[in-house]
Amino acid sequence: MEIFYTDMVDGREAKLDSEESTHAVKVLRHRRGDEITVVDGLGNMFHCRLTDDSPKGAVAEILEKVPGWGAHPYSLNMAVCPTKNIDRLEWFCEKATELGVDAITPIIGERSERRVFKPERCKKIVLSAMKQSLKAQLPTVFDAVPLKDFLSQDVPGLKLICYCFEGNARRKSITDVLNEYATKTTGIGTANHCPETPDEPKITILIGPEGDFSPEEANLAVSRGYIPVHLGQSRLRTETAALTAVTATYLHFIHY
Amino acid sequence: MEIFYTDMVDGREAKLDSEESTHAVKVLRHRRGDEITVVDGLGNMFHCRLTDDSPKGAVAEILEKVPGWGAHPYSLNMAVCPTKNIDRLEWFCEKATELGVDAITPIIGERSERRVFKPERCKKIVLSAMKQSLKAQLPTVFDAVPLKDFLSQDVPGLKLICYCFEGNARRKSITDVLNEYATKTTGIGTANHCPETPDEPKITILIGPEGDFSPEEANLAVSRGYIPVHLGQSRLRTETAALTAVTATYLHFIHY
Repeated sequence: MEIFYTDMVDGREAKLDSEESTHAVKVLRHRRGDEITVVDGLGNMFHCRLTDDSPKGAVAEILEKVPGWGAHPYSLNMAVCPTKNIDRLEWFCEKATELGVDAITPIIGERSERRVFKPERCKKIVLSAMKQSLKAQLPTVFDAVPLKDFLSQDVPGLKLICYCFEGNARRKSITDVLNEYATKTTGIGTANHCPETPDEPKITILIGPEGDFSPEEANLAVSRGYIPVHLGQSRLRTETAALTAVTATYLHFIHY
Repeated sequence: MEIFYTDMVDGREAKLDSEESTHAVKVLRHRRGDEITVVDGLGNMFHCRLTDDSPKGAVAEILEKVPGWGAHPYSLNMAVCPTKNIDRLEWFCEKATELGVDAITPIIGERSERRVFKPERCKKIVLSAMKQSLKAQLPTVFDAVPLKDFLSQDVPGLKLICYCFEGNARRKSITDVLNEYATKTTGIGTANHCPETPDEPKITILIGPEGDFSPEEANLAVSRGYIPVHLGQSRLRTETAALTAVTATYLHFIHY
């Protein structure tokens, strides 16, 4: 199943940019009258019929709109320190998109080995992963932001930090914290969950760099309302820890 | 922390092969008398002292043996159809090892696009991931086996197949099936779990190829005792589905 992406949609028709138009017309040889599937990156899928098969700018009439196509019942922002080997973060971006993520915020911490991040490649990867996994919402890949600036923002919802506090005394498992949160709030993730619930839970998860957060950074996050959690006994790479947190969230809401 | 691997261990000393010896002596410049950490791939970690710093075959005296180093409280065999792009399976092997897996069995199904699999690279990858994630047990990467031959084997424990049966009526979520199993059996994964439990749960999970299993293959698996499970609403690539199943198992036993 081939999905086309465009941000040029009005109530009646969807315009494809030159890249998507070329792919539809030159590569897949779609012609006027063919039915195609278009997503707007905002959660909407459109059944369309091609009315203009120009390879520079194809246009399709909207036959049907399907909101929330391939959606997940939570809003997840993964604040992850970019890995030294950028392939590992790019891999995370693909996998997180397949499972379900709303935003990826590259965070630069004191101990980050990589202090520069260019979002272009990751944006291409999440776009391709969105289409491949039949979703209509494009995760936002933000520009890199220093951790202290990120922590100065007011973030609603459940905020978690994966960090190894001395003695573990302060930490619960991510699964326990998600369970407590879900039952405390809307009941999403529980048997009583009703998909119509308007206010889906907002979750933000901080993942540190290879050298982990500094104790000062971790304590600052806690003072800003981030709950310290652990991801179990295994020693995970940064990108593996990040994907494990995404998967824990995904599995928590599996009954949606 | 640098870990060395060897399968040449007797009660008193550990011999390193030429590759590990070169790494220890030429690269890391260890000399006789230095303390090093050695794992045997069978779950044991050894604090050692170098007694022979030959770069061809170093030898170390065992000071302390730590069994079950970095172990997980279950035995997991992932029977996965190799991906057309082998990098994706190799990536899965690394991540599964970081989280905790005992065996990876490449399965060739009717619809497998890749019908030939050379295990050498995956074996190198799990060895490196074992050392990097501070574990002492080396996951076994088997040679590829046709699905029907694999299903003809008698496999103990919990057997799951991730497959989209028409209508989903026959499927439960992997999390529900793991919960039912754990409470039915040793109590592992529950608050009452006692790490000393001798018979750790054995779990085998079947993951199909890009084209999925054929209905005949899926029904044969069910007739052989495999429980159909789903991994949620997202459409996941083969290697992502496989890692999600590994992560679901890992998180289920997170209180170990």
